[in-house]
Amino acid sequence: MIDVAIGVDVGGTKALALLVARDGRVLGEAQAPTPHLESDNVGTPTAEVVTELINDLSARQGLDPASLPVCIGLPGMMRRDGRLVYAPNLLSASGADIGALLGASLASSMVFCENDANCAALCEHEWGAGRGIDDFVMVTLGTGIGGGVFADGNLVRGRSGFAGEIGHMVVVARGAACLCGGHGCWERYASGGGLNRLTREAAIEGRLPTLVAQRGNAAAVRAEDVTAAAAQNLDEAVVLMKEIGWWLALGLANLAAILDCGHFVIGGGLSIASDLVLPSAREYLSDLVEGHRARPAITVTPSMFGPRSGAMGAALVAFERSS
Amino acid sequence: MIDVAIGVDVGGTKALALLVARDGRVLGEAQAPTPHLESDNVGTPTAEVVTELINDLSARQGLDPASLPVCIGLPGMMRRDGRLVYAPNLLSASGADIGALLGASLASSMVFCENDANCAALCEHEWGAGRGIDDFVMVTLGTGIGGGVFADGNLVRGRSGFAGEIGHMVVVARGAACLCGGHGCWERYASGGGLNRLTREAAIEGRLPTLVAQRGNAAAVRAEDVTAAAAQNLDEAVVLMKEIGWWLALGLANLAAILDCGHFVIGGGLSIASDLVLPSAREYLSDLVEGHRARPAITVTPSMFGPRSGAMGAALVAFERSS
Repeated sequence: MIDVAIGVDVGGTKALALLVARDGRVLGEAQAPTPHLESDNVGTPTAEVVTELINDLSARQGLDPASLPVCIGLPGMMRRDGRLVYAPNLLSASGADIGALLGASLASSMVFCENDANCAALCEHEWGAGRGIDDFVMVTLGTGIGGGVFADGNLVRGRSGFAGEIGHMVVVARGAACLCGGHGCWERYASGGGLNRLTREAAIEGRLPTLVAQRGNAAAVRAEDVTAAAAQNLDEAVVLMKEIGWWLALGLANLAAILDCGHFVIGGGLSIASDLVLPSAREYLSDLVEGHRARPAITVTPSMFGPRSGAMGAALVAFERSS
Repeated sequence: MIDVAIGVDVGGTKALALLVARDGRVLGEAQAPTPHLESDNVGTPTAEVVTELINDLSARQGLDPASLPVCIGLPGMMRRDGRLVYAPNLLSASGADIGALLGASLASSMVFCENDANCAALCEHEWGAGRGIDDFVMVTLGTGIGGGVFADGNLVRGRSGFAGEIGHMVVVARGAACLCGGHGCWERYASGGGLNRLTREAAIEGRLPTLVAQRGNAAAVRAEDVTAAAAQNLDEAVVLMKEIGWWLALGLANLAAILDCGHFVIGGGLSIASDLVLPSAREYLSDLVEGHRARPAITVTPSMFGPRSGAMGAALVAFERSS
């Protein structure tokens, strides 16, 4: 009976590795920036950084990494066999078999891979804000938007394991260009990247006069300025965060129509700004969802483990697949 | 062992009742226009028409309707307990407990209700174009767009039984007004209603000069004129049908991103025009879906039973719930 595992969450900006006990306690942590280097061997920079994190974390606890089950959560279309076939937000690893690279560098046969948002959903369902809820969607707001869909108590994986790519649901036909090559994807409007884009537009269009005056010019205003100013109740910033809340609610309403999920768990990097976004998202959602008067209320809560849920869920997958 | 059941599909324009054997053979058929009368008692006109259809069908076969399991497929949000809580395309029955009304009028305890597109999905999964396929979505193109979602071999029902309301997925934020009260719903662009709308717009904007000349004025050009002319290869009509194909593909791409379904079955009234729409939808879909180069091909086929799949699937539900 193995009672600890390592879960790693590789996001668009950083990689987080956690040593996790079977009951969900986090026993150790290590992190590093996600490499976006070009390399002849796609995935190699990512695998090297993750290997180092895992070796560090094991060494600190006096553990042999080859004896621990490990799972890596990765952002993008992860095939059931563990290959990351397409990752618009992590192009340096798009197409790589990260599991095989890591298995080789760790000399381990217990390395598994899973989509990062699926990991977060599994974590929240087991230990967090989705516990005991059969129909919910985990929504991770980071650089993009990831998703993990629970229906009738089970994670929906789909034909090849790609289910949950909710950020690439088009909500504005022929809208803003997306890294995936498409146009009008939800994540262009409601993620961290969406906030960047809306901030830029609003600054240029004169809707952020105070922040533009503070920064000296429209191009210098950043998303972080908006979230900070909104937290200080600056009207123009509050309005922009409400706009993000509206776009978030629009996509949630779509998912509720398709899946009749009664609950959403919001995680990922942007969720740090959740106090600014979630109240308006909740308010708009009740108007936007079809037949809202005939539906029981839909709840929207922040992830219980915040930026850790992906890595914790990855550890859960490591336990399950190695047992 | 009951070996026949009655399945009824109540659509936006007509109600179809079928007497169906356990192996899927259709033994009898009756149909009538769907009533849209105002009534003091919501649902009563629908229940009366359906009662008459069932009595006719049973009498012709010398059967007692109270001895047969019956299921009614209805368009809209059908709660698990059988109440049609919201039906924007069948407002005269929206909110009614059709099952209770029919149980009373037929003096039967074997009357069940289900969403119409769920019925069609169950039919196609059991006997038709979804047989043996674990992850597919049934898309019914009628007055609106209905859906039935299969994930990992099971019909997704959601918290209250409302899953599959795919027609109300917003694809144009703040777009065309929908009967549901929302804006930019997919069914405003890709259903029979969507074709009506696009036809009207195209006629007014001068994109259907031949048809406008034939009819005398832009307001007189109907969707049926477009499908008929497209079948005759009239360029301006073919272009419009391709536009419908593009909108259809857009929503299918969204569903594929969320669910990773590898297959779509297209049914409903507009599917009669499927030869004109599906080839272009297939073509656009392969471009629109995220990471299409990394995905196995997604297949799109017409329903095997066309306008009968809803009623046949309703009979299937009747068998299952009465056994």
